[in-house]
Amino acid sequence: MIGTASVRASAIRGAALELFVAQGYEATSMSEIGARVGIRGPSLYKHVASKQELLVAIMTDTMDSLLAEHRSAVAGTDDPTERLRRAVEAHIRYHARHRMEAFVGNREIRSLTEPNLSEVLCRRAEYEQMFRILIADGVAAGRFRVASERIASYAILELGMGVAVWFREDGEFSENEIVWQYVDFALRLVGAA
Amino acid sequence: MIGTASVRASAIRGAALELFVAQGYEATSMSEIGARVGIRGPSLYKHVASKQELLVAIMTDTMDSLLAEHRSAVAGTDDPTERLRRAVEAHIRYHARHRMEAFVGNREIRSLTEPNLSEVLCRRAEYEQMFRILIADGVAAGRFRVASERIASYAILELGMGVAVWFREDGEFSENEIVWQYVDFALRLVGAA
Repeated sequence: MIGTASVRASAIRGAALELFVAQGYEATSMSEIGARVGIRGPSLYKHVASKQELLVAIMTDTMDSLLAEHRSAVAGTDDPTERLRRAVEAHIRYHARHRMEAFVGNREIRSLTEPNLSEVLCRRAEYEQMFRILIADGVAAGRFRVASERIASYAILELGMGVAVWFREDGEFSENEIVWQYVDFALRLVGAA
Repeated sequence: MIGTASVRASAIRGAALELFVAQGYEATSMSEIGARVGIRGPSLYKHVASKQELLVAIMTDTMDSLLAEHRSAVAGTDDPTERLRRAVEAHIRYHARHRMEAFVGNREIRSLTEPNLSEVLCRRAEYEQMFRILIADGVAAGRFRVASERIASYAILELGMGVAVWFREDGEFSENEIVWQYVDFALRLVGAA
């Protein structure tokens, strides 16, 4: 059962995300976040300990979601090309759908204090490495051809960040059309046969 | 002859850039910028009218440099593949060398007021369109194959932004090695024969 407290916590997180996007983490105060969800004064602190806690929760949940989507995307097949195809699809789709999280993750990484910063960077490194391994597997199988697996994995990840910047639901292309084009870009980029 | 005033103006701009990177535009004050270059109080305003003026100058000069480098890169050849190769090289090299400008351009676009915002966005649109035209020329010549020239140009531009985020002079790869790999990525991405 989802209690009122959990509904509140999720509303507070959503309000924080919107304010961090609109005006930045530094310029946002806890009382503004509280005002957005109709909570005044110190009772906000029953639900959340600090603004930093909200930022950490947004960033770690984003990375945990990406890691989970990646794992589920590649689980169903051993074929290197198909595994990379599905992983890129998950990556692009997530970024098209979670543009605010991507923006905050990108812009506010320096606003994290330790040990939060290390935790988020660790998850990012893990996510990047998953792509690197997919590419290395394809290279080992003679299916891909790249000068550096690391640089190729960076390039593929960067493509997703870009989509989060400019994608709009009412734009020229649907989410699926964007996903398919970017999957194509990624497969071409690694020289998939 | 470069006078003292111009040397000062350039030092002020450099100090502003470093502070915008380190702590953000909003959190930076004119007096902090002045303090960095040893100018106290109102005499800073002999050199620069406002913090906004500094941000605009950084962003428009960045775009003007990118536009000029692009034009000079493609000027020497009519071959579509070679034109794209040189344009991507200029793009990646600029981003590897001007990481602070790229970071501020990315992070602080929302801190621009009108008509400054429109001016910067206009230059960005012009820069994107130059890549789109290079790709369209290659498609028309039967050399490239893409689903959308616009999306392919976005993808190529995104690759440069990524390099600005992670490139380090003392990293695993030299600037040239990065440039060559990314030129390869871009040519593969457009399906260059």
